[in-house]
Amino acid sequence: MHITDTGEMDNKITLNHGSGGKLTGELVREVFTSRFGMTEPLTDSAVIEHSGSDIAFTVDSYVINPIFFPGGNIGKLAVCGTVNDLAVSGAIPLYISASFIIEEGLPLDDLVEIALSMAEEARKAEVRVVTGDTKVVEKGKCDKLFITTAGVGKVREMFRETGTGVRVQADDRLIINGPVGNHSIAVMSARKQLGFATGVISDCASLNHLIGKVLDKVQGIHFMRDLTRGGLATVLNELASITGMGMEVNEKEIPVEEPVKGACEMLGFDPLYLANEGKVLFVVAEEDTEKVIEILRNDPLGKDASVIGRVTTERQGLVAMKTISGGTRILDMHSGSQLPRIC
Amino acid sequence: MHITDTGEMDNKITLNHGSGGKLTGELVREVFTSRFGMTEPLTDSAVIEHSGSDIAFTVDSYVINPIFFPGGNIGKLAVCGTVNDLAVSGAIPLYISASFIIEEGLPLDDLVEIALSMAEEARKAEVRVVTGDTKVVEKGKCDKLFITTAGVGKVREMFRETGTGVRVQADDRLIINGPVGNHSIAVMSARKQLGFATGVISDCASLNHLIGKVLDKVQGIHFMRDLTRGGLATVLNELASITGMGMEVNEKEIPVEEPVKGACEMLGFDPLYLANEGKVLFVVAEEDTEKVIEILRNDPLGKDASVIGRVTTERQGLVAMKTISGGTRILDMHSGSQLPRIC
Repeated sequence: MHITDTGEMDNKITLNHGSGGKLTGELVREVFTSRFGMTEPLTDSAVIEHSGSDIAFTVDSYVINPIFFPGGNIGKLAVCGTVNDLAVSGAIPLYISASFIIEEGLPLDDLVEIALSMAEEARKAEVRVVTGDTKVVEKGKCDKLFITTAGVGKVREMFRETGTGVRVQADDRLIINGPVGNHSIAVMSARKQLGFATGVISDCASLNHLIGKVLDKVQGIHFMRDLTRGGLATVLNELASITGMGMEVNEKEIPVEEPVKGACEMLGFDPLYLANEGKVLFVVAEEDTEKVIEILRNDPLGKDASVIGRVTTERQGLVAMKTISGGTRILDMHSGSQLPRIC
Repeated sequence: MHITDTGEMDNKITLNHGSGGKLTGELVREVFTSRFGMTEPLTDSAVIEHSGSDIAFTVDSYVINPIFFPGGNIGKLAVCGTVNDLAVSGAIPLYISASFIIEEGLPLDDLVEIALSMAEEARKAEVRVVTGDTKVVEKGKCDKLFITTAGVGKVREMFRETGTGVRVQADDRLIINGPVGNHSIAVMSARKQLGFATGVISDCASLNHLIGKVLDKVQGIHFMRDLTRGGLATVLNELASITGMGMEVNEKEIPVEEPVKGACEMLGFDPLYLANEGKVLFVVAEEDTEKVIEILRNDPLGKDASVIGRVTTERQGLVAMKTISGGTRILDMHSGSQLPRIC
């Protein structure tokens, strides 16, 4: 058993195993997927057949710290995250389950506020929370509240492979719906780790309606993935890895808001690796690029959409960024996490 | 906000809110179900329509302490529990999601052993683990490992209301598939709380094949529920409450193994309120009683099946037990838990 990186313990789980980066992938592959008979590449949702009509099925646990942050709370996040995992798999999200692990002593008012947020977000996203579970553990055996949401959706047949990468082609364009890094910086400022106020608000949002507008009008959507743990750079690396193609991006086209940039510079973080909760990467046939950008920019959740690069047959399996200063930087897969418990 | 019982704090979550008893029901109803627009009575799985064929959807989080116990571990438990929740809802379990919240420092070997158990139990139950998630939290912010499993199954149309209680009639018979209390006593002995060895092994098992054999041959199955948190007495109380009928049971017909009885007497526990993980209550049309008992007793998981009582129009909403000593005892809904973190 060697789920390790230089300097990591090789027989115990470390925080880096939960980073969403390289070590998480290794842990998941070595411990779980082969034993469970899952097929690679892993996608945000499993697509399963049911009575001749496919359904998408997904799950995520949320262990964010703190449970309230600018722009949302753990409950809103849990609904948005699962809705988005279904949506990027080409499915229409329909039903959600919500399971709560609560630390003894959590104020009831907090739980009520979180439940209200979940109900409101579910209403906005037009999904129904239909089943759930509640467990309580002793003080010190959990950190206030963990929520696990599973989701079930109806697969749009035309887009059933949108999560897998098999449709990606050379010269496809890479599009994101807005600036990156806001969620992580908002959460960190709520932790008071920054030591200064940023005014940054999490981008936490359900993207299913935005994605639906695109899929209703554009056939050439070849891949989608939400930019959560590990951020944009990690998603691009995964895509390069599963397609065996090169990903070429332009730094100047990747939107990052000034306060996010400032916080990152001060703290040595790279916004390209920070988790987002309302951002999605679209890989789009070249001829459909303008149509997608137009649809996105007409929606508040996509108003800052940008074509950030393209798929190439050069530098296969790698992500290369043309920097603002004129050089080229390879964006590696991080082995650890910049920020634990951001989602 | 008054989710409270005499002496309970009324503004903070307590361990009793997670007991599976009265307080859990109040918490779930007051905080979650109304806001989420769920319909009463709550069942083990939600039944949702999909392309003209219904699917059942369920979720449970497992926070058991310790994570290894005689007869299983948290992984096996998580698969069995979700399989059983689908099966008692009249569904054929098909797909499972598995989400892991891991405490930093957990030995990798433990995680591998748990994953192996899950894979083995999934194979036995003929369900597929198709999607998952892995999060890691700092030491002291979780207790080794929490697993949340959601499940999706295909509803057998004839039994789509089996989880709701609407088909229950006077003179229906109450049948369980074997002795109660083993799981809880096994877990407690693994915690070394007993101070003595019991040799008791958890009954943790997937019941879908056993239940399938019954449903394949018997139409008169009016209700099923697995006897988990809160045990047999709690399930009977819930059934009395949702049907408005009386539940009459005979103490001498309720199987309890001697070592379980002994441990309970010594520690002041009542086996009727202890959680099981491989026991199910069937409510059966009187004329089908013998057929059900015969099918159950021909299966290892039902060899000690017993007719423990019947549904009556007397003592409406209550559970009355004829005791061995000849009296009648009302089995109340416990407001707290005898044993936290048993599942």
